[in-house]
Parts: sequence; C-alpha cells; structure tokens
Amino acid sequence: MQLRNLTTAAERRAFLIEKHHARLDQVSKALVDDESKIHCENLIGAISLPVGVAGPLIAVGDLVNGEFYLPLATTEGALVASVNRGCKATHDSGGVRVLASKAGTTRGPVFYTGSLAESKRLKDWISSHLPEITSKAHETSRHLTLKDITIKPLADYVFMRIAFDTQDAMGMNMVTIATQVIVQFIEVETGISCLSVAGNFDIDKKPAWLNFINNRGFTLWAEATIPAEVVKSVLKTSAHDIFEVWLGKCMLGSAMSGSLGYNAHFANIIAALFASTGQDLAHVVEGSMGVTTARVTDNNSLYFSVYLPAVMIGTVGGGTQLSTQREIQELIGVKTSSELAEITAGAVLAGELSLLASLAQGTLATAHKKLGR
Amino acid sequence: MQLRNLTTAAERRAFLIEKHHARLDQVSKALVDDESKIHCENLIGAISLPVGVAGPLIAVGDLVNGEFYLPLATTEGALVASVNRGCKATHDSGGVRVLASKAGTTRGPVFYTGSLAESKRLKDWISSHLPEITSKAHETSRHLTLKDITIKPLADYVFMRIAFDTQDAMGMNMVTIATQVIVQFIEVETGISCLSVAGNFDIDKKPAWLNFINNRGFTLWAEATIPAEVVKSVLKTSAHDIFEVWLGKCMLGSAMSGSLGYNAHFANIIAALFASTGQDLAHVVEGSMGVTTARVTDNNSLYFSVYLPAVMIGTVGGGTQLSTQREIQELIGVKTSSELAEITAGAVLAGELSLLASLAQGTLATAHKKLGR
Amino acid sequence: MQLRNLTTAAERRAFLIEKHHARLDQVSKALVDDESKIHCENLIGAISLPVGVAGPLIAVGDLVNGEFYLPLATTEGALVASVNRGCKATHDSGGVRVLASKAGTTRGPVFYTGSLAESKRLKDWISSHLPEITSKAHETSRHLTLKDITIKPLADYVFMRIAFDTQDAMGMNMVTIATQVIVQFIEVETGISCLSVAGNFDIDKKPAWLNFINNRGFTLWAEATIPAEVVKSVLKTSAHDIFEVWLGKCMLGSAMSGSLGYNAHFANIIAALFASTGQDLAHVVEGSMGVTTARVTDNNSLYFSVYLPAVMIGTVGGGTQLSTQREIQELIGVKTSSELAEITAGAVLAGELSLLASLAQGTLATAHKKLGR
Amino acid sequence: MQLRNLTTAAERRAFLIEKHHARLDQVSKALVDDESKIHCENLIGAISLPVGVAGPLIAVGDLVNGEFYLPLATTEGALVASVNRGCKATHDSGGVRVLASKAGTTRGPVFYTGSLAESKRLKDWISSHLPEITSKAHETSRHLTLKDITIKPLADYVFMRIAFDTQDAMGMNMVTIATQVIVQFIEVETGISCLSVAGNFDIDKKPAWLNFINNRGFTLWAEATIPAEVVKSVLKTSAHDIFEVWLGKCMLGSAMSGSLGYNAHFANIIAALFASTGQDLAHVVEGSMGVTTARVTDNNSLYFSVYLPAVMIGTVGGGTQLSTQREIQELIGVKTSSELAEITAGAVLAGELSLLASLAQGTLATAHKKLGR
Repeated sequence: MQLRNLTTAAERRAFLIEKHHARLDQVSKALVDDESKIHCENLIGAISLPVGVAGPLIAVGDLVNGEFYLPLATTEGALVASVNRGCKATHDSGGVRVLASKAGTTRGPVFYTGSLAESKRLKDWISSHLPEITSKAHETSRHLTLKDITIKPLADYVFMRIAFDTQDAMGMNMVTIATQVIVQFIEVETGISCLSVAGNFDIDKKPAWLNFINNRGFTLWAEATIPAEVVKSVLKTSAHDIFEVWLGKCMLGSAMSGSLGYNAHFANIIAALFASTGQDLAHVVEGSMGVTTARVTDNNSLYFSVYLPAVMIGTVGGGTQLSTQREIQELIGVKTSSELAEITAGAVLAGELSLLASLAQGTLATAHKKLGR
Repeated sequence: MQLRNLTTAAERRAFLIEKHHARLDQVSKALVDDESKIHCENLIGAISLPVGVAGPLIAVGDLVNGEFYLPLATTEGALVASVNRGCKATHDSGGVRVLASKAGTTRGPVFYTGSLAESKRLKDWISSHLPEITSKAHETSRHLTLKDITIKPLADYVFMRIAFDTQDAMGMNMVTIATQVIVQFIEVETGISCLSVAGNFDIDKKPAWLNFINNRGFTLWAEATIPAEVVKSVLKTSAHDIFEVWLGKCMLGSAMSGSLGYNAHFANIIAALFASTGQDLAHVVEGSMGVTTARVTDNNSLYFSVYLPAVMIGTVGGGTQLSTQREIQELIGVKTSSELAEITAGAVLAGELSLLASLAQGTLATAHKKLGR
Repeated sequence: MQLRNLTTAAERRAFLIEKHHARLDQVSKALVDDESKIHCENLIGAISLPVGVAGPLIAVGDLVNGEFYLPLATTEGALVASVNRGCKATHDSGGVRVLASKAGTTRGPVFYTGSLAESKRLKDWISSHLPEITSKAHETSRHLTLKDITIKPLADYVFMRIAFDTQDAMGMNMVTIATQVIVQFIEVETGISCLSVAGNFDIDKKPAWLNFINNRGFTLWAEATIPAEVVKSVLKTSAHDIFEVWLGKCMLGSAMSGSLGYNAHFANIIAALFASTGQDLAHVVEGSMGVTTARVTDNNSLYFSVYLPAVMIGTVGGGTQLSTQREIQELIGVKTSSELAEITAGAVLAGELSLLASLAQGTLATAHKKLGR
Repeated sequence: MQLRNLTTAAERRAFLIEKHHARLDQVSKALVDDESKIHCENLIGAISLPVGVAGPLIAVGDLVNGEFYLPLATTEGALVASVNRGCKATHDSGGVRVLASKAGTTRGPVFYTGSLAESKRLKDWISSHLPEITSKAHETSRHLTLKDITIKPLADYVFMRIAFDTQDAMGMNMVTIATQVIVQFIEVETGISCLSVAGNFDIDKKPAWLNFINNRGFTLWAEATIPAEVVKSVLKTSAHDIFEVWLGKCMLGSAMSGSLGYNAHFANIIAALFASTGQDLAHVVEGSMGVTTARVTDNNSLYFSVYLPAVMIGTVGGGTQLSTQREIQELIGVKTSSELAEITAGAVLAGELSLLASLAQGTLATAHKKLGR
C-alpha cells in the first residue's frame, strides 16, 4: 500500500497514522472546506493558523475610503497589538493616504539562440511582432491583458520579461499558460528554442533588484502625518526619536547589511495578511522589499511613509477561494485586488509606525516578554 | 463598544459580524486550539490552510537517517505533486545527503556614540568585556548561549550583531530579551546610548547579503546523484537538459535579475514547510536565498545540490506549539530544530529537482493547467 | 603666499618644492600638453602612465571590421601580455564578433514635493509635458538628444532618470547642464522644488543594480568561438577546463560574494583602455559590472562571450582631447564613441579569455612572479 | 615583422607608426622612466595625465597629523576645485579626524571536491592545519603575514578567502604567490584539486557585498564638524540643506538604485588619488563603495563623515615605484600605506562635502559649465 494509491484525506490519514503512530485529529478537524474544492495534492487535512484583528484602520485611497478591520494570521505574539497601535495612532491623525499601481504579473522565459547574431535576430523579431504575440496571449484567457515586454540578449541567450494584467487574480498560473503559448509561437516562427518558460527574469519568489527597480504585481505607497500630541499619547515617544531610529536602522543599518529592505518589518504584516486572505505565502519574499521614510515636520509632527515595489496579491483564484480566507476578505470589506492592495499599504504603514515607535521608546523586549512566550 | 474591550474570540466575532454583516462561521470552526494557549491578540478564530503530503523522502544526515513524509501547507496546486516527484526521483537514487549547521539567531542593536572616537572606544570596550556581556546574556535564559559578536563602527554609530544558540527554539524573542540586557549593561558601563535594540544589522525578515554571506539561523546543504535511468523514468528528461535549464535560469537568469536567490523556488517549499510546522512565516524571506547547483557526471547521471545560507527554524515556542502544527511535526518524526533543519534541506532539494526537471521537459504550464486553477 | 594665488604650473611647483622640499622634475617633464588646454585646476604637472600594446585584435562589428592594436595604460605586470594572448587566440579563431548599443548618459534629479499627492501630480505633469521638456533640453546643446525619462515617486520625493544621446561625447557635463534647465522649467511650471540635480538615480560612479538592469552609457556584447586546437596551442588548456573555472569562479564564486561582476577581471581591461584613451577613470566602476559566459561545443571548441551593461565612453571632450590620449585613439583607429565601444567589447573578451585560461592552466601565480614584481 | 619580435619601445613605435600612419610623439615624450624599470609588456610609451593640487587638508589620525597637499590626477574639470573647497571648509573647522584599519589583501581559491562529504572533510582539514598553512605562506615572502581564513563549502565546491597583511604593498601579486603555495600544500595533503587559485571569493576588482560587509584592504573612516558660519561662508549653504540633499541622494536615491555606494562621488577622489600615487586603477571599483553620513547638530553645525569598507592601497610595488608617482607620494608626505590610507580618508571627505554642498546650493551645473568643457 502506498500513499499515491489512496484517494481521500481520511484514507491518507489512516495510512500515515498506522505507519507513523501519528495523531492527526486536529489536522483533520482544522480542514473546513470540502476536499473537492481544494487544489492541494495528497490532501490529509489542514493546519489552523490563529487570526487576530487590528483596527479599525482609516484608509483613504483611489478605491477605498473608510474604516477597515485588519485580520492578521500569525503566531507571533505582539504583532496584532503592534499593528493595532499603529492603526490607532493614524486613526487619531485622520487616517492613512494609500495608493496602489498595478505593474502586472510577470513571467520570464529564456531562449537559447546559439549566437549573438541569432539573439539579435530574436530580439528584433519579437519587437516587430508584438501585436501577434499579444493576440496569442489573449486567446488563452479573457481575464488577461499583455501590458509590456522587456527583451534582454545575453550572448547566445535571450531573456524575456512579459508583464500581464490579470484582473483580480494574482495570476501566476494564468501568465504561465499565456507565456507558454507565446513561447511556442516564437519557437515555430523563428526556429529558436525556448530553454525554459520561467528563466528567473520574471523573477518569482526570489529577492531581486529587478523587481525592486522595475516593479512587479502591485506597487504600493502609503503616508500619514502624526501630530506631536498623538505621537506622544499613543506612541509614547516623539517624532524626533522615531526619526532617529528610522535613520539609524532602516537607512544606515540596512545599507550596512546589503539589504533590499529599507524598512523595519514589512514582511511581518505582509505574511499575516497574505496568510489570512489566502495569498501565496512564497510571495512574502517580494513583499518584504521596500522603503520606509520618516521626517520631523516644522511643528514636531511626524511625516511617515512606506513604499513597497512588488506586492503579489489577488482576490480571485488559489487560496483566496477557501472558505476561511473568503470570510476574512469579506470581513475586510474588499472585493478587488486593487482594493486589497490599498488596504495592504495602509496596514503595512501601521505596523511599521508602531514598531519604530516601540524601538524608539525602548520597549520592544518588554512587549515580547509580555505578549510572546 | 470597541474591539479592545472584548475578551473572547466569540465576543469579537459577534461584534464584527454585527458591525460588518460578516460571516465568520468557518473562521470560528477552523480554530482548534484553546484560546488561552494562543499568542495572538484580539483573536477571532483561525484560517484553515490545506496540507498535502509528499514523500517518503530518504534523508541521510548527521541526525536523521531514514524515510520521512513531508506535510506541506499550501494553496498552490501542483506544489505537493512536484515535491513528491522529487522525493521519488531521489528515493530511487538512494536518497538525499543532508547537512545542517547552526549559525545562530542574531539580534543587531545600534548605538549612537556622538563621534568616531567614541565609536572606537565603544568597540574596544565591548571587545574587552566579552565574558561579562556573555554572562549578562546567559542570565536571561538557560536555553540561550551567546556564540559570536560582530562590531561595526560607522561614523558616530556602532552596529552590533550578536549571534545566539537558542537550542530548539527559533528564538527571536529570547535573543531580543538577552540583547536588551546586554544593551542596558553597555549603556550603564560606557555611558553611550543605544538607539535601537534592533538596528537592521541582525538582519531580520529583510532580504540581505549580510545573512547570505555570514549566515543566520541554520545553514543547510543537501545533495543527491540521480542515475541517468531515473532522470529518464521519473523526471522524464535528461541530466543534460536539467543542467542547461539550471545554468540558464538559476545562474544567468538570477545574475541578470540582481537576485539573492540562485535557485528555482526555494521559497515555495520553505513557505509550505514553515506553515505546516508553525514557523514564523515572515522568515520565508531568509529561506528564499541560496544556490542550487547541477552537474552532469561522466555516466550522464545528474549531481544536484542546494545551499540555503539562512534558515530560521525551531521546534519549540511560537507557532510550533499549536496542536495542528505539533501533529505535523510528529508526523514528520522530528523532535529538535536540527533534525527539522536536515529534513528541510532534503525537502528543498526534492522541490528544486522536480521543478527544474519540469521546466527542462517543458511541462510547467501543462501541470499548472491540470492541477492549478 | 598661498597656492590659490599662483597662476602657472611652474609657480605652483616652485611653491610646493619650497614648502615641502619636494622634487617635481618628472611631474613637470611628464606634462606634454599646453597648460591652457587642460581642464584641471591648480595644475602642477602630470603623471606618466606606461602604455603597452596588445594585438592585433580582429574585431567584427556593425561599425568596425579588421585588425586593431590595443594600447593599454597600466602598471600591472602581465596584463598586456595576457590581453595579447587573448587577441592571438581569437585571431587564430577568426576574430571576435562585437556589438554595442547606446543606452545613453543619464542624470537623475530628485524633487521634494511635500506629499504623495504632490508626487503623483509631479509625475503626471512630467508625463504630459515630455515634448516641452525635450525642447528645453535640446536648446542647451545641438549635440544632445533626450532619449528617455523614468519617473519614480517615493513618498514625498520624486526621482527622475533622464537618458540622453550625447553623440561622441561621454557627456556627463552636457547632460548635467541640460538636466539643470529641465529642472528649472519643472520648478517654475509646477512650483515644486528640486532637491538636487543629481539624486543618485542616475546613478553615476557608484556600483548599482539600476545600471546593470536598465543599462547606462553603452551596452556591450562580444563573442568568439575558439577551436579545440587553438585552445590547446595558444591557451595551453582545454575548453572543458576553462568552462569549469568559469562556472566555479564567475558564476558560483560571484554568487557567493554578492557581486555585480560575474566575470574574471573586466575592470582591468576597462581601466587600462579608459586611461589610455582619456576616459573618466571613476567610470571604471560601471565598467566592472557584467557577465562572462563559456560553453563547450560539440567538437570541444569553446564558445566564449562577455556582456557589459553600462560602459561610459567617448571620443570627444574631457581627457580624450589631451595629446597623448588622442594619439592613442588614432593608433587604435577609431573616430566615434560607438567604434571605440565595439573595440572595447573585443578587448574585454580577449582579457577575460586569457585570464580564465591561465587560471584553468594553473599559471596565474607563475605569470605574476615572472612579469610582476 | 611582428610586434612581439621587437624589443624596445622605440622599435615598437616605429612599427606601429609605419603600419598605422600613427603619430606617437607625445606618447614617447610622456614616458619619463627608464624602460627597464617598467612592468608593462610591449611598452610603447606613456600617457600624460594632468595633476592638480588641492589643499592643504588638515588631517588628524593615528599616524598623520598636520597639513597635507592632495595631488589629484584627473581630466574632469571642477574636481580639484571641488576637493579644494572641501579642504578649506574643513581647514577652517579644525580639520578632519581620520582612521584607517587594515583588513588585509585577500585571495580566494576554489576547490572542486566531488561531494558534500569531501567538502566537509576539506573544511575540517584546513581548520585543523592553520599553523602549517600559515608557515607555508610565510615562506613565500618575509613581507607577508597570514591574518585570517574563511572557508565556505558549497555542495561539491569549497571556497576559501585568505586575508594577508602585506606591509606597505597593496600586495595582490604577493598574496597570489602565497595562495598558490597554500593551494599546492592542500592539494598534496588532501588529494583534493584546486579549480582556480582565484575563485571570486576574494573578491578582486568586482563590486561585491562580500568586500563591503567583511572588508578588504583598508577600512577608512573620516569625520569633521563644520560650524554653521563656515558652512555659510565657504560652502555657501546651510547644514540643513546639505543634510536634506544627503538624505535624498545618498540614502534614498542609492536605495532606489540598488547601489553599494551610499555616497556622492567617492570614486572621483579615489580615482584621482589612485592615478596620482600609482595604485592599480581597477581597484577604483572597491573604493567606490561606502557610506557618507550627515547630521545637523544643535547649533546648526554640520557633522559629516565618510566610511569606505574596502580601499586597496600601497606605497611599495607596482605603479607606486614610477618616478612621477613617487614624486607625488613625496609631495603628499607619506611613506607607509597606512599613512596614505589615512590621507585618502580625509581627501574623500573633503570631496564629498564639497559636492553635496554644491548640490544643496544648486551650482553643480554652473561649476561644470565654467570649469569643464
């Protein structure tokens, strides 16, 4: 008897329990969706990941405008409390201004051409056949629009980076399928072979300057100005002290570390929101990049902002369809990926603000002693 | 009535349901642990994240030796199937050789000294008081051992990077508390103020060359040699074709992208194992870095390896204590963080091998069309 | 008496000789140009930098086609001999195929806008006034053409990157003057202040992924295929051994080092050609970036290539006008910056090939013992 | 008749003049050293690179203390004038505090071991034979001391990074020869082959985070505090404005560009001093990395600093022995590499300060219009 011959989660659990003397009661219980709805092979159950709620966050963007609760799936004590404090500080300051721009989901095939001359020919051919290439891609899905193609010859290789709008889906599967069709079209027309439909010039789920500099998924911005009295009453510190910690940590400390993250902890908020809303957790990598800024204004208020160059997010497809994740999206109150992107920008700002304040105040260790384990 | 005045998850759900006309039935149902055990403020329930099982993986390390099932929490169709294929290919080749080395969990405070001369004084003082500093740190927990201190003066700032062994815990809370005590000791003795207990020279949850080059958490290696006939029968391609895809994608494609990930998709396997075993999901960032290598041997076998410079993992504390996550760890059959680290190395190799084979074979899009949505 | 009151190099030398008991005879003698032609304040003389000649190199490009001697200004023993050997190996293989593409010289001003909304307004304003901006720039010089503008809002800052074609000049001065005019136009029209005409989004003379990924100055490619017998007779090794050294060093070694140079020693050849032809030596930084590739072909020949993403080069202006540098350019036989760029690509390939062969053969230390000191 | 058969520079010039109808009169005239002293194969003459003098700089370090003139070899108009202004501003402020620390010159061989187990064996063997390895290295030169060895296994490869003190020589040749002997010793004793004596884990003449983070050659620091009135009278701007330009350019602009240079133009001063004092010009690459900091103090003075993590510099060997370069070193008044390193730190600070002031004042374009061409 082997695992692959079993057809239900219950059978697989029984097999593993017998084989390993394992208990899987809770893993079984934590699975709340119907097996048939789930895209996960050899399913045996589910893990239960706790969700706490921060907020309300006041977010004002092009699409969202109002108060929003932020359900965060995390096992890190103090994270929800911290984001919550950031929500309160910005709430008492009139809210967070948010902005999201869709750079698009990218796939980056690599061709092997055999020579520089052939690489140049391939580049020229692609450049002069964009309408046909676009048509081919659009035939694969009515939800997909080709936005942009970058072509990079490297000796006898040619790298492409194709960016698509995939509506409300994060869309990696969709763009892989479209890219496969583009690749086959190019192969047939030029006689040049594709080495790999994904050649790391996408670049997917690896930290990379290409995504930081030329963006991927959503580009997010958020800003808030916190009056001196709110900094004092809610954040228990001053604009000046937050500024100094930001400069020493997010600028100089990140420079000294060779980092692509000039921030305090984007990844914490991104991971918690990605888990709660059903995003692909490997995309936490892209979401950890970016820049926080701080500035003391004339009246000792704090101008504070975050910039995230590459956030991969969707409200359709993949884990977003599961029932707990869907309830979470409804609780947030967003329907489209752009709305969720705007909320994400605000949530990240709240989390950054609170942690930098805590560091300025010198209470990080205390908070973790109390709320962590 | 406000969220912060409520004391149970049920009360919070009721409040949010009324306020937002939200449904939270499944979120409630997915919470399988007792509320009192959970370190997550403003708890309202849980998300259910499906778990599929790949394997068995044969892993041979210093601590583990045998067959292991790999429970992967994911919403990405095809991932479990892919890792499973990698397990089979390596299984039929005699297994994966794994190796794990503990670099330690780091915390990196930053001091503001006022001048270069004071920075030099601080550096010298710390260098000549290592035993006292170590003692102070060790008083905070019997589970913690100070391993190493790096000191970097930058003008009127001094950055420290302190590495600790935290036994089987990932240990970020533990090291924050120990570092806080170290910092207070230094402040009192030298009169120089700490600007932030965490100054991004740790560097935590941001992609950074410092962690790649000088390591953090666990350093992992794994290798396997796949005979030509197994490459053909299980992976449906050849060692030569896998090598060519690897060179074009993981080496040249990553170079062209300015990446810290010279691999195909470490982050996918790391995210799935981190979620299933209760790790901090923001640490997927560190786990996405590293290098895959491939080589065609004389008899057309494939030598294949992975190197992960900074994997933050534990089997004690945080999310590892939750009941579903604990069942998963028991199913894997590991007790210590070092054992889990070795298994992780093998799992990542299996996932890398299978994806690169799929790209070489040209079936990535097909697999996603069939198993994704 | 102070240095600044003196008006000739002879007076300044006399002043320094008296003050420092220094000798400056040779520094005086090495100055071969008329003082009035030289753009160097407080001139006292010149250093003499030895020039050796490698070649002939056979280079075949869009503009150049034939045999070229490569005068290299260097004090590093073995460098000329090494490039010379690379010239011979490629000469005996039919020459080097070269390619150069002008990305343009960039300047990157940064504006402080005060808010995200103003940043967005500035971006939109610039995007909708490209013809006027271009006109303003073109009024500053008839040698300059605006090619491209990138706009990056970051919170209350906006970074621009403006790329210009500056004909045969490297053109940094020209583009700074044009950018200053653009900036003043934008300031007047929008009321938003420019913080700095050069905001490191150019990015000039600092190693940076922005230039690697999006190119700057010239993008260069070169390739050659060396038959097995030439690899053996001239390079004293095999295609296989060169490939293995390349893979271990230029790919894996560079990955492990967090490098932007996936090559052996681009900087050596770039520095020597930049010095001999009068380029700005600080641009060696950009010229050190890039990728070398190697491949063993079916008949054990070596396919070999170089890719340089950002080479700042000119044949007009700056140091290119000095008499020794001008003689060197005439000796090479190039008139335009594009011709010099193509020759540079070939020279770098020759240097890379020879060093990697030397490392494969194990003779690097021997050569330096013999030719260095 | 071929170039390689000729034995004197005069013969080679005659050959090239005949072949190319080239003129090489000035190239001949600019050669002031005796041919036999010069380590440059196929010598034909020299280029003349103009030298201007900035200063005096007041530098106060562990080794130097006093006024120093800075001879800068450059063809960039405005550079000497700019450094000169920085010297004056710091002179009127009491001078620059400088600090230099020798990390050592590194060479990084790479071994191919065949397996992870062999890589581990090699690492362990090296770790347990450090005294013998050191002895072997020391036999190659009495000027060389082995300081440190780092060992990095990557699958079936092992990278080493060996740091040496080479007294007053930059020492790349010396360390290559020593490393070759170490490598041969290891090969004989372990039976494991070295793939390349230089495996890019040195890493030499390529921009790389390894050198930034773990240092190479000299680590340099310099600081100065400029009173408000000097900022106004000499630099024509304010501490606040310099701070704002620094923050926008050197911090945020560099972050947005993926740079290893968080500075304004280190490379300009490094290149000019390297050329005038006979350093290897390819090492401008390492010297371009690093961080400038600025801070407004309580009384509106400017605290200003530079940090250069990897400056390769010497006063013995290579180009430092040529007669013009030697006169320049005597003019500066330094004998040892450490003294020259300290002066370099001060010179870089002067150049940075002046350029940032010029940008703050908005006069960069004006200066280049007037002093450039």
